[in-house]
Amino acid sequence: MYIPTFDDVKTAQKRIAPYIHKTPVLTSTFMNELSGAELFFKCENFQKAGVFKVRGATNAVFGLSEELAVKGVATHSSGNHALSLAYAAGRRGIPVTVVMPHTAPEAKKSAVRGYGGSIVECEPSTSSREETFAKVVAESGADFVHPYNDPRVISGQATCSLELLEQAENLDAVIAPIGGGGMVSGTCLALSNVAPETKIYAAEPKNADDAYRSFKAGKIIADDAPVTVADGLKVPLKDLTWHFVSNHVEDILLATEQEIIDAMKLIWQRMKIVMEPSSAVPLATILKNKNTFAGKRVGVIITGGNVDLDKLPWNNSN
Amino acid sequence: MYIPTFDDVKTAQKRIAPYIHKTPVLTSTFMNELSGAELFFKCENFQKAGVFKVRGATNAVFGLSEELAVKGVATHSSGNHALSLAYAAGRRGIPVTVVMPHTAPEAKKSAVRGYGGSIVECEPSTSSREETFAKVVAESGADFVHPYNDPRVISGQATCSLELLEQAENLDAVIAPIGGGGMVSGTCLALSNVAPETKIYAAEPKNADDAYRSFKAGKIIADDAPVTVADGLKVPLKDLTWHFVSNHVEDILLATEQEIIDAMKLIWQRMKIVMEPSSAVPLATILKNKNTFAGKRVGVIITGGNVDLDKLPWNNSN
Repeated sequence: MYIPTFDDVKTAQKRIAPYIHKTPVLTSTFMNELSGAELFFKCENFQKAGVFKVRGATNAVFGLSEELAVKGVATHSSGNHALSLAYAAGRRGIPVTVVMPHTAPEAKKSAVRGYGGSIVECEPSTSSREETFAKVVAESGADFVHPYNDPRVISGQATCSLELLEQAENLDAVIAPIGGGGMVSGTCLALSNVAPETKIYAAEPKNADDAYRSFKAGKIIADDAPVTVADGLKVPLKDLTWHFVSNHVEDILLATEQEIIDAMKLIWQRMKIVMEPSSAVPLATILKNKNTFAGKRVGVIITGGNVDLDKLPWNNSN
Repeated sequence: MYIPTFDDVKTAQKRIAPYIHKTPVLTSTFMNELSGAELFFKCENFQKAGVFKVRGATNAVFGLSEELAVKGVATHSSGNHALSLAYAAGRRGIPVTVVMPHTAPEAKKSAVRGYGGSIVECEPSTSSREETFAKVVAESGADFVHPYNDPRVISGQATCSLELLEQAENLDAVIAPIGGGGMVSGTCLALSNVAPETKIYAAEPKNADDAYRSFKAGKIIADDAPVTVADGLKVPLKDLTWHFVSNHVEDILLATEQEIIDAMKLIWQRMKIVMEPSSAVPLATILKNKNTFAGKRVGVIITGGNVDLDKLPWNNSN
């Protein structure tokens, strides 16, 4: 297992700069008053392809030798990594195949196709996804870019926190949602090198709390096919992300489905931004753990904005 | 009738600066490719109170003498001016009463109350609104701040285009939605002084096309209680806004309800911002009048972001 270093992050930052946005950091008087903390929202919903994952995918795609690149890339993903890899492959002009659960939001599928990606569908479970994917790779010879358990991907995601620190100095903490742990691992890789005093929190849906249980148990515990509105956060930790999470994360905080939906709606209403349920989990956990963050300067990673506008979660819950 | 001058705009700009945001201008590769023009979206949905109208309301409230201010301010409004006046009055610490149709979105009513405003409800017609309002003013002695037909308000709205020109130079055109004409009049007042070569377009719902018909007829023609998803644009022109519209507007362009809804959804999906149906009318008209804007640098005013998330228009149309 190769563990990416800070040099890899600096290489990634230069490599991906022409293809990604330096996303804005937004603040909100209302959210500060509500939380009792000073919150800095890093808006990766405004990122290319609508999600931070384009950072890692672009780093992987543009790091390939010409020889490998011509065979294309492939991945399995709950959606956003697929979209990101399709975007990056499109920019390089190489083929991309994506294995995706047939239950993935239609908006995500059509966006992948819109970027020129081919989709192979599987059942919405980790086991079905991995099985289907093995077939695809065997047939195409494409380079496998894992959604998160890949040093190239983690190095790319790490560039997000580097930017955040330039935009909002002296943060006491950074909090990001955790699914497979790619963004959190990137955050750990960046901050442990440039701001080791900044505490790193991960925010997870209670309904998909495998990272929380792993963290408390001291070993990886996986769910199979958990059900949560935060559909980007259903996947389990893997060895490389477990390395970062177990070594650098201060704590993992949980939020219920209703708390996630309420936080998401509050951000839409008050900050006028479109973002995914997954991206609302950090605010949901901040609001129920006010003592942890009171008076602190906290970076909050809004990971993405790819949501199906025809299926907003508060329309189901009312 | 006092017609505000560019000096009034400069005074307004200084007066309101401490209380408003300099809102960002966003661009979108996707929208440029789709329209064939270069679009600069001035995002007043990120403005204080979620709408450009806070500019005019703040100028009116902070321009009052101490003697007048203590009696408070009052207005009638389809919602956003009410919210803005409540915000401004709250910042100055004076009372505010709002006459609002009982059909106004609950989100707007509760937001007005949230800023400390008192609401008096009326029927959803211009006539009922004006009648109810006369009573309120007679009883309270409050200063009437009209939603748009007021030189203080128009001078305040004009500051939006001054900012836009700083942020996006050499615009060939600016397009804004038109209801009563406050934003369009402010745009005329600003641009006719600092960028007289920039053409000004107004965008209006076909279902509430009184400004269009007035413009073509050369005199004010009013609707009573038109029905459109763009609920901020139902009100008619008045003498002061007619002055600016008839003298400075290049053309008024119309969009159907479905075109407005489609443009709104497209902006949410692609630009990841929450904005009102009214704010989508300009893009809707650009997309159906591509020849008019082809190859041009066009400022597009996104007027506000106060939308009821429980009643999104595409959920009714699917």
